[in-house]
Amino acid sequence: MVRIVPERDLLENIALDLRALEDVERGFAELAAGNATVPPIMMIPVPALEGEVDIKSAFIQGLPHLAVKVASGFFRNPERGLPSQSGQMLVIDAETGFLVAVLLDNGYLTQVRTGAAGAVAAKYLAPQKTEEAGVIGAGVQARFQMRALALVRNIRVIRSFSLDGDEVRDAYVRDMERELGVKVIKSSSVEEVVKESSLVVTTTPARKPFLKAEWLHPGLHLTTMGSDAEEKQEVEASVAGAVDLLACDLRSQSFRLGELRSALAAGVISETTPVVELGDLVLGNHPGRTSDDQITMCDLTGVGVQDTMISIRALAVAEEKELGVTVS
Amino acid sequence: MVRIVPERDLLENIALDLRALEDVERGFAELAAGNATVPPIMMIPVPALEGEVDIKSAFIQGLPHLAVKVASGFFRNPERGLPSQSGQMLVIDAETGFLVAVLLDNGYLTQVRTGAAGAVAAKYLAPQKTEEAGVIGAGVQARFQMRALALVRNIRVIRSFSLDGDEVRDAYVRDMERELGVKVIKSSSVEEVVKESSLVVTTTPARKPFLKAEWLHPGLHLTTMGSDAEEKQEVEASVAGAVDLLACDLRSQSFRLGELRSALAAGVISETTPVVELGDLVLGNHPGRTSDDQITMCDLTGVGVQDTMISIRALAVAEEKELGVTVS
Repeated sequence: MVRIVPERDLLENIALDLRALEDVERGFAELAAGNATVPPIMMIPVPALEGEVDIKSAFIQGLPHLAVKVASGFFRNPERGLPSQSGQMLVIDAETGFLVAVLLDNGYLTQVRTGAAGAVAAKYLAPQKTEEAGVIGAGVQARFQMRALALVRNIRVIRSFSLDGDEVRDAYVRDMERELGVKVIKSSSVEEVVKESSLVVTTTPARKPFLKAEWLHPGLHLTTMGSDAEEKQEVEASVAGAVDLLACDLRSQSFRLGELRSALAAGVISETTPVVELGDLVLGNHPGRTSDDQITMCDLTGVGVQDTMISIRALAVAEEKELGVTVS
Repeated sequence: MVRIVPERDLLENIALDLRALEDVERGFAELAAGNATVPPIMMIPVPALEGEVDIKSAFIQGLPHLAVKVASGFFRNPERGLPSQSGQMLVIDAETGFLVAVLLDNGYLTQVRTGAAGAVAAKYLAPQKTEEAGVIGAGVQARFQMRALALVRNIRVIRSFSLDGDEVRDAYVRDMERELGVKVIKSSSVEEVVKESSLVVTTTPARKPFLKAEWLHPGLHLTTMGSDAEEKQEVEASVAGAVDLLACDLRSQSFRLGELRSALAAGVISETTPVVELGDLVLGNHPGRTSDDQITMCDLTGVGVQDTMISIRALAVAEEKELGVTVS
């Protein structure tokens, strides 16, 4: 018997909340403790349509299920009036290999678990007194990252910059002010956002860096979550060399797909540069930020343990509330 | 809207027939023509339970869909009264990346497409007058491989050897005699099967070779489909060196996971040994068997193009007959 859970049920029942944060924290902790197996991402390119299907997974010892996530990004879809991104998760019994559920989340759970990773980064790396935050981009993750931040810091102001049109930017301001009860300012430049904020999250699919090292300042934490492919880059390579503490979700991935890739390629960092994984922060193996003056950076590429953790939560809720349909 | 198709509907509507053979032939042809992208298999090991989840996929240019197959093998399952193998296929729109269907085939479509690959091998490599065939193993693929052979050769006799108990072996004889209308003989050794047959298929999960090169004889075709992992081996390494023509489904996989892996490790063949891929036989780039006296061997490891082809067929039938349920 396989449970099929449609998107609307997941939207209604799974939120980016402290539970999601805890789940994703645990996923990173298990990874750092050596209890997780994360195979390299499987990529199926469809170049003629600027498309790609990516598959992520992770097995975590001792947990009842593992997830296999199949996520698509087809960047000509908007020409047909369709969203670029879609996806779903298969939840598999880790004791028998049998399929237990298909979560037809259409990418929603990925948004939640990606936001949660941003919350983990902010929890251990952002200055305690972060009140002014900045975000580059005005899309879905620009929202999730600020929701995530609000879980771990008392923010008062969000400065937002994006290349989107006024309508999108105004919607961002309106929605986030209402949702988080904070002041949201449309900034006129990335420079302004960086200089005025204690925490900045970059959330764009940029292929050319737009954030300069010269704008960094003491007491800044920077989370870069846009780059998850070899051709992407949001921050100048020199940024990674200008921070006091460099962190990431999974070294092997960040060095291959994240901002650390371009920093490595530029010779700013090397394979042996100390880079703390989030799991080591969660486990207390590394203290994280130790003074308000440090400049810290966390590079997120998205790890299968996040998918496995969020899908285990979603399955538990779906079973408890009997969401979706079962097929045998 | 996603169509969910349960196993029973697939069992009733998709068979190992000439259409399946044609589909799989086309998959191999597209692969050989350079029109298919086949990423390396993604493997998620669960060693404590002798388990593994494997993911295969292939994108074939010009076809409307691609499949992502998630297949599990958990070899402690029989201790709980459950089958070791399970699996399902996701069918994805190759133009948008959206999920179109989930085929809950529980591994059935894999059996069909694996049988069909055996039929392709036999079609181009078995002597035309193959009347006496042999099969090692008495499981599901021992059945599918002989069904497959019956599509392309007029067989009269099947010699069967396996290490299974009498009940399983007798069931094999009874079922195959009834289904194929041929005589099925329980042989007392692998040696006897090989020596008396023009075509032999090995279908076991053996980790130690049981088929010796000294038993090969002119006019024999051998298909090895059991080894699909580094630790598996059905035939002595020297077998690959003792045949006139060596074929496989996908060189890069056979050299890594098939019988060609152990032959390579033993130094019997090298990376540059000529090995014909099935697609080159289908396309006529290679003539295949050119005389009744040749000894030929085809090593099958299972390729994503087979999954994509069979799932496209299954989807078409499911849509036409409105099988399963749709979830939106």
